[in-house]
Amino acid sequence: MTGPEMHALVERLYPLCRSITGDGVRATLDIVGEHLDLQVHEVPTGTEVLDWTVPREWNVRDAYIKDPSGRRVVDFRRSNLHVVGYSVPVSATMSLAELRPHLHTLPEQPELVPYRTSYYAETWGFCLSQDTLDGMGDGPYEVVIDSTLADGHLTYAEHVVPGTSEDEVMISCHVCHPSLANDNLAGIAVAVALAKSLDQPRHTYRFLFAPGTIGAITWLARNRERVGRVKHGLTLACAGDPGRLTYKRSRRGEAVIDRAVTHVLGDRPHHVLPFSPYGYDERQFCSPGFNLPFGSLTRTPYAGYPEYHTSGDNPEFVSPSALADTLEVLRQVAGVLDGERTYLNLSPYGEPQLGRRGLYGSLGGRSDTKQAQMAMLWVLNLSDGEHSLLDIAQRSDLPFAALREAATALLAAGLVKETA
Amino acid sequence: MTGPEMHALVERLYPLCRSITGDGVRATLDIVGEHLDLQVHEVPTGTEVLDWTVPREWNVRDAYIKDPSGRRVVDFRRSNLHVVGYSVPVSATMSLAELRPHLHTLPEQPELVPYRTSYYAETWGFCLSQDTLDGMGDGPYEVVIDSTLADGHLTYAEHVVPGTSEDEVMISCHVCHPSLANDNLAGIAVAVALAKSLDQPRHTYRFLFAPGTIGAITWLARNRERVGRVKHGLTLACAGDPGRLTYKRSRRGEAVIDRAVTHVLGDRPHHVLPFSPYGYDERQFCSPGFNLPFGSLTRTPYAGYPEYHTSGDNPEFVSPSALADTLEVLRQVAGVLDGERTYLNLSPYGEPQLGRRGLYGSLGGRSDTKQAQMAMLWVLNLSDGEHSLLDIAQRSDLPFAALREAATALLAAGLVKETA
Amino acid sequence: MTGPEMHALVERLYPLCRSITGDGVRATLDIVGEHLDLQVHEVPTGTEVLDWTVPREWNVRDAYIKDPSGRRVVDFRRSNLHVVGYSVPVSATMSLAELRPHLHTLPEQPELVPYRTSYYAETWGFCLSQDTLDGMGDGPYEVVIDSTLADGHLTYAEHVVPGTSEDEVMISCHVCHPSLANDNLAGIAVAVALAKSLDQPRHTYRFLFAPGTIGAITWLARNRERVGRVKHGLTLACAGDPGRLTYKRSRRGEAVIDRAVTHVLGDRPHHVLPFSPYGYDERQFCSPGFNLPFGSLTRTPYAGYPEYHTSGDNPEFVSPSALADTLEVLRQVAGVLDGERTYLNLSPYGEPQLGRRGLYGSLGGRSDTKQAQMAMLWVLNLSDGEHSLLDIAQRSDLPFAALREAATALLAAGLVKETA
Repeated sequence: MTGPEMHALVERLYPLCRSITGDGVRATLDIVGEHLDLQVHEVPTGTEVLDWTVPREWNVRDAYIKDPSGRRVVDFRRSNLHVVGYSVPVSATMSLAELRPHLHTLPEQPELVPYRTSYYAETWGFCLSQDTLDGMGDGPYEVVIDSTLADGHLTYAEHVVPGTSEDEVMISCHVCHPSLANDNLAGIAVAVALAKSLDQPRHTYRFLFAPGTIGAITWLARNRERVGRVKHGLTLACAGDPGRLTYKRSRRGEAVIDRAVTHVLGDRPHHVLPFSPYGYDERQFCSPGFNLPFGSLTRTPYAGYPEYHTSGDNPEFVSPSALADTLEVLRQVAGVLDGERTYLNLSPYGEPQLGRRGLYGSLGGRSDTKQAQMAMLWVLNLSDGEHSLLDIAQRSDLPFAALREAATALLAAGLVKETA
Repeated sequence: MTGPEMHALVERLYPLCRSITGDGVRATLDIVGEHLDLQVHEVPTGTEVLDWTVPREWNVRDAYIKDPSGRRVVDFRRSNLHVVGYSVPVSATMSLAELRPHLHTLPEQPELVPYRTSYYAETWGFCLSQDTLDGMGDGPYEVVIDSTLADGHLTYAEHVVPGTSEDEVMISCHVCHPSLANDNLAGIAVAVALAKSLDQPRHTYRFLFAPGTIGAITWLARNRERVGRVKHGLTLACAGDPGRLTYKRSRRGEAVIDRAVTHVLGDRPHHVLPFSPYGYDERQFCSPGFNLPFGSLTRTPYAGYPEYHTSGDNPEFVSPSALADTLEVLRQVAGVLDGERTYLNLSPYGEPQLGRRGLYGSLGGRSDTKQAQMAMLWVLNLSDGEHSLLDIAQRSDLPFAALREAATALLAAGLVKETA
Repeated sequence: MTGPEMHALVERLYPLCRSITGDGVRATLDIVGEHLDLQVHEVPTGTEVLDWTVPREWNVRDAYIKDPSGRRVVDFRRSNLHVVGYSVPVSATMSLAELRPHLHTLPEQPELVPYRTSYYAETWGFCLSQDTLDGMGDGPYEVVIDSTLADGHLTYAEHVVPGTSEDEVMISCHVCHPSLANDNLAGIAVAVALAKSLDQPRHTYRFLFAPGTIGAITWLARNRERVGRVKHGLTLACAGDPGRLTYKRSRRGEAVIDRAVTHVLGDRPHHVLPFSPYGYDERQFCSPGFNLPFGSLTRTPYAGYPEYHTSGDNPEFVSPSALADTLEVLRQVAGVLDGERTYLNLSPYGEPQLGRRGLYGSLGGRSDTKQAQMAMLWVLNLSDGEHSLLDIAQRSDLPFAALREAATALLAAGLVKETA
């Protein structure tokens, strides 16, 4: 998928009213399902998952605040951000003073509407811009949230690209945010594009599209016996904003995924953050009982931009080129994970004579040695059984792909063999 | 004790003529004993202590240099710095030329009187300002040091604050310097204040007030079998000057005391120095045979300020606010040492649902997560039995006290337990 | 040898036409043999050495390109760089167009003649300045290379300075470059001077003068059973240019040779490079099968200066003072390698009383402690059997020589003993 195609997917998913449960998630997965074969899971309300319980399902038909003239001052139909997520139903007439405790604004960003939720404490509320609030008279107002909060299901989906190995690479995207584009329709779009680009990989790739926190916890609870197959994981979010790429390390800190991503980011402008137990679902995957090697890839990270969790995070905030750039890095990371091997130099005493095997330029004395030759020398020198290609890439500061090519040529020449 | 109270103690101790033995040390300990219960030890001259021998006891009644007019050009009664420590008695009339080899000045700080000693080589001498020397004529001078150097005792004292554990924290202050305020009446005053502030600590706290080198060596010789109880130690000196706090690491380099002090110093302006076998009595405590985890806390370190070992190190050089600041850091260090624990997360698979237990805010979407919540997430994430609270403090960059509070709340909620 | 003497040796060796075999190498070793007892080895063409085979021997009598007027436009007698190393014989008349593929120039350095070789692919060629090429008409040209490429020998030499120990320090210089001064006549000259300066060293010193790559491989093949005796090694090259000294670490990275050289370079302006499997014969010595502790000492490193592998690398590019500076550093490195010991403090509980033994100043209170006293305190403090003098030098930041003197004094006083 191209950058514009990913951006079109973001725009198409944008209007849907997602939450941690409900029809918005189902509609989102239907559209993702047009691109990928999805296995959709419906987990009933009340199911115990680790320390948590699957909550009731929430849906909204309509919601508004009407002023005395009958005008919808706040209107769910214009933006689903206007309703606090998981608001219980309400239908009442009240003064602004009575309504005020239920109104959320951003006084320092007066034109923007915030995003708020209250999944596990029963309440209701509206989000609106400070400008709108400032223009509201004393009322009375007609206040309606036509929502349902009832036994139902939590919905999540998996897409699996089988590899030659059962070892898994897992990419996890949260799908619970309503009309917020970078967080996380951008992550979903890039994940879809990555999945479509994989062609007979070595690892099995598992893509998880699930609501944040409770979705990851539900998946972990239902896959407790098999999480050991996940050898490398990433949460993918905020994948389309104009900022530089940011990688947050796994709890392990120096897992292969950590070393692969930081190597690929290498020369690009980028940030690397240490692990912290906050942010996206790496919180769950990296909880100490599981301690999976899950890092987090974003552009500007969690809560790091002014538009974060506001109506400013709309499709205009996401660009096709940023989406394409994130995808390119992920593809290179996949290349590293799939190409990672350890070789043994079969001619380790002195350098083997590469020229005789057609692997080395014949004219001596020149000082502009080519990357391909340096890659061969590095692979030969460090292939003592203790250094993998990624180790060699880090030590030599050569691109992984160049080392992989060199190793392939040396393997063909019988100068190295792959270790078990 | 407040800063002014500590400063008053410095001023009261200032005039006494201390040395490594003698009545000045006893008078000093008497005054300290008005604040703390002291166990005073008198060790006879000739006692063998490790590689050393307790020397004869030294006392001075009077000392002066009188010019031909009978005026005391140099007068012990004005400052005890004027006599070289451990000077043998002398009573003679001599020309300036004869006297000169016995006179010590600081030509580059012509107004200041230096501090000099000669404990282990028999000699006598006077210290005076270069200005005074420059004003002296040819003489003859009446030169008197009315001192005694005779069998007696070396005196030191201990104050112990019993804890619930026999594991000890030891604070050592040298008490052998005469009228020098920062080095080390400031250290003595802060140690007294720290001792008075301790209230039923977990560790047993041992405060040692002893002459430098020979005192520490004597204490080590007499406590050789029990030094293993000292789990954390500090030499405390130069605690009241205007400079920033300086921590010199123990020989071990990364002992708990090293990590506790550097964590507490954290955001303040401060210096951290590597261990070196010079300075205060950490030289002895960190000798390779003992290798105790002793760091050294000072403000401006050993020999690091122009007033060091001169008459410029007087009570005006020491401020109540600097004394109070040093004390506050020590109290926080004590808080870390006493609160240091390792916990085990009893719900390590995914995050436990903190909201259900009233430990987490209910309104989602906000990005200004509070320190208390971050502290709980960090304690849960790293309480795998391998990370103590201090480890977590260092990794999370959160204050130890916040993590300790979080751990206490999680313990009450049954989510963690203390490891053995 | 002084700097000027070393420079004179460079000038004397400069005109000889060296290659990886042939009479130029023999003539070079004859001159080196005027300074050192050399063991010269002649290894027949066809001998199998590791993965390689000793090539035919190459010699040149004359070579030129004559223009239609009979003038030698390119003349081997003026510079041996004009002939591509290992050129096969040729004698023909041809147009410039036919000749052009055999001509090598440096378009971006139009006044300089490049250095090129083709040891293992049969061809012939000339190197000339771009300026010369630009002045050449269409021809026809008389083209002659009067060379022989025939069965013969590869020649290398060793000089051994016996030590009290069979453990060896090995210094390797490549001797295969024709008229290039810094690379590597400078290295040869400094190696000769170092060898002449050694006086009954503890280690046995082995100097290897051999052609690059094939020479090192031949030596390794013939000494495979005894390479374990080499405890410390250096390739020495580019030892006389105006740049700062550069040390490239061994493959091991923190071998004693790495720590010794970086300690000695300490306060001088210098560069330290990580190991890479390129450069000089450390490539062979550090191949994974041998993995010898070989670093590389140069001034400006391999391929790091514009004159590298051109006619600009002539004796004027090398200075007596730079040669002397490189030698001085090597002599200090030899001092560290020979003085490196581990001691055990026999009085490890507290500091021993140094004053009683005449090892410590008697007047206390002064803050200008001398380096000699600090060195004794450091040696005592860290001589716990786990720290060598070099360890102590690195941790204390004191010169190795000062610590060695301190250790000698402490040994004489019976305060330390040498560990086995």
